Amino acid sequence: MQYSFAARTEVMLSSPLHLIRSLANRESFISFAEELPAEELFPVSSLEAAAAAVISNSPTALQYGEPQGFLPLREWLSEDWKRTKRIDVGPDQILLTTGVQQAMDLLARVYVEPGDRVLVESPASPGYLQVFKMQGAVVIPVDSDQNGLIPERLLEQIERTQPKLLVASPNFSNPTGVLWSLERRKEVLDLCREHSILIIEDNSYGDLYFEKLSQREFTSLYPSLFAMDGSGSGQGVLYIGSFSKTIAPALRTGWAAGSRPLIDMLAAAKQLADWQSSTLNQRFLHNMLESSAFDIHEHIKMLNREYDTRLKLMNGLLQRPAWQDASYVIPKGGMFIWLQLPDGLDSLALLKCALGKGAAFLPGTLCYPDGRGSGWIRLNFTHPGRDELLLGMSLIGEAIGEFTARS
Amino acid sequence: MQYSFAARTEVMLSSPLHLIRSLANRESFISFAEELPAEELFPVSSLEAAAAAVISNSPTALQYGEPQGFLPLREWLSEDWKRTKRIDVGPDQILLTTGVQQAMDLLARVYVEPGDRVLVESPASPGYLQVFKMQGAVVIPVDSDQNGLIPERLLEQIERTQPKLLVASPNFSNPTGVLWSLERRKEVLDLCREHSILIIEDNSYGDLYFEKLSQREFTSLYPSLFAMDGSGSGQGVLYIGSFSKTIAPALRTGWAAGSRPLIDMLAAAKQLADWQSSTLNQRFLHNMLESSAFDIHEHIKMLNREYDTRLKLMNGLLQRPAWQDASYVIPKGGMFIWLQLPDGLDSLALLKCALGKGAAFLPGTLCYPDGRGSGWIRLNFTHPGRDELLLGMSLIGEAIGEFTARS
Repeated sequence: MQYSFAARTEVMLSSPLHLIRSLANRESFISFAEELPAEELFPVSSLEAAAAAVISNSPTALQYGEPQGFLPLREWLSEDWKRTKRIDVGPDQILLTTGVQQAMDLLARVYVEPGDRVLVESPASPGYLQVFKMQGAVVIPVDSDQNGLIPERLLEQIERTQPKLLVASPNFSNPTGVLWSLERRKEVLDLCREHSILIIEDNSYGDLYFEKLSQREFTSLYPSLFAMDGSGSGQGVLYIGSFSKTIAPALRTGWAAGSRPLIDMLAAAKQLADWQSSTLNQRFLHNMLESSAFDIHEHIKMLNREYDTRLKLMNGLLQRPAWQDASYVIPKGGMFIWLQLPDGLDSLALLKCALGKGAAFLPGTLCYPDGRGSGWIRLNFTHPGRDELLLGMSLIGEAIGEFTARS
Repeated sequence: MQYSFAARTEVMLSSPLHLIRSLANRESFISFAEELPAEELFPVSSLEAAAAAVISNSPTALQYGEPQGFLPLREWLSEDWKRTKRIDVGPDQILLTTGVQQAMDLLARVYVEPGDRVLVESPASPGYLQVFKMQGAVVIPVDSDQNGLIPERLLEQIERTQPKLLVASPNFSNPTGVLWSLERRKEVLDLCREHSILIIEDNSYGDLYFEKLSQREFTSLYPSLFAMDGSGSGQGVLYIGSFSKTIAPALRTGWAAGSRPLIDMLAAAKQLADWQSSTLNQRFLHNMLESSAFDIHEHIKMLNREYDTRLKLMNGLLQRPAWQDASYVIPKGGMFIWLQLPDGLDSLALLKCALGKGAAFLPGTLCYPDGRGSGWIRLNFTHPGRDELLLGMSLIGEAIGEFTARS
């Protein structure tokens, strides 16, 4: 029979994202394109102990659980955020999701009508752009610089488009790795409050900072918009994040935190979407986090030392001749270097050449809703080990060499 | 700030389902309202062994996995279905989801435009009705009887409404527990083919049959619409199901199987929705299913013997005087008895009274999109153990007694 798919599916099929991801997933590639943490740093033995304890403890762990997510894990988050992030929310203000992607998707489903304008910090994570397009939103990029979103650009777009939402990642935006200044945080929050624009604050990468600061010091210098808005009492910010980058992606455990009306609505949508995420995995996490043998904050410090080492290695490789006309700013955290290619070099053409040699990266065009970004690429420095980093960067360097030699 | 939620969210808030479920989830209730398998029958030690093996085997198990789902598990399903269900699909025709609820939701998102007509076998599972309403569909019930969906009613609705989809559960429909006859299966499939109506065949309860038949014998007598349509080659049926009722719900692992164009589209939507389900849980399942210490078909036989015993116990309790004016048909499988209350008794009023005594059931009105069903209730017989069954049925019996005494 002839299928008659909904018109909105055209958005999904028209994107090159799917193809590039499946190409780069092949094992024979060295991929700088993905958003993957380092496998060799996963807390395997802690998780193994947690799984054994949870499964043997009570068959209830294998039953359907609470749609909003395993309560003790939400309680743990609530306590931890109070101590380390100056965020003060109750467990009933937290919804556990299947990663941040689901948190973003649920928000889009309950908040966006076709034709609504959604502002997105630009450049942006490709997966998010499509979520809003699927709901029929008009996605409008708002430019950022090295201090974060530019307030003047934000105000221009607010006045021009009367948007409903702003999507932003003040801590180590994907792809740019920018850490917003305190002043910018204040200005953006004030503008959005004034115009009743809901902010989706994505903190996926917020714990991966490489400066020598304690969690509390870091939080004082760079408070989340959510904390500045009164942790839900201001009602103006939805705070999303996950354990994918700090513990392990396969647990697929993320969250949305916000005011009760917002979380209640998202929880209702979650039940229709999949009834609930794996409460078994949520129990594993809770058991680990409560165990005396595992300290997540020490674990994150270890990750940050290692990722900083990999970033320095990549930065060293970028000093080689092939890259001499590329430009970038060394990020203070996160997982990516956002790099401008030598003049006239197109990222998709370069990708095709690099794939032929066995290395991949994310072309910048995927990070813009409007075709810009062809001169930019995103390089992930957390997943490849030392040898892969050396080889992969050399292969991409070769590809660049071939293009620049021709011109 | 004032939130401006999308209009479609009104569907979610207007349903009494959310409230009743949260009420019935309280531990102090004996609940016949839920769709829960028996916890004491979960294969706990097999799962424990699988979890230990998977986690210690390779850190890759904790990394992001394939969005379409762990390939070896899809291969296992493909082989098993060939052997036991006469279904012949490749692993690339299977998408792993977070339970059947997500399979249904994804299909609604890629296939339904606002205003589209969706036919639903009536009465129907409450969670499904809302999924289609959320997408703006006009949900149209099609009556069924003890042999399944009634072809004459189906044709009437096809001619009247020109629908795009039919949602049906030929094996032990929720809530009625009806097992469609072979003739009805043929008639319904033919009608839908003729009018290019895509069928969503929900097989959630299909393995829970209590007749003394082998899997192959059962499949010969009651082939799935999907197998009859050529397992995807006919393109007219999407086949959904899960391990929630046969192994454990907390693994949140279900599937959609169909033609490649349909599965590719659902897989693209799945990536936007949550990127992927827990591949860790999918690996646990695969490890168990491949283990010599666990045989899922023997496990299901054991479940069926035990559930049949519970059904017989409930049937015995329904012979007591309080229930004498109720009527129902004893199902041949599944998890529910669908029961018509004595004349004039309203299921919601009865529920309120029963909740006061400490027992809950599902009122029939939730199973219709149009307000019918007030004289019906759905009783789950798989979750409560023997003592709970005795006590809970006696409490509801008391509630019925109070109403009938008054009239």
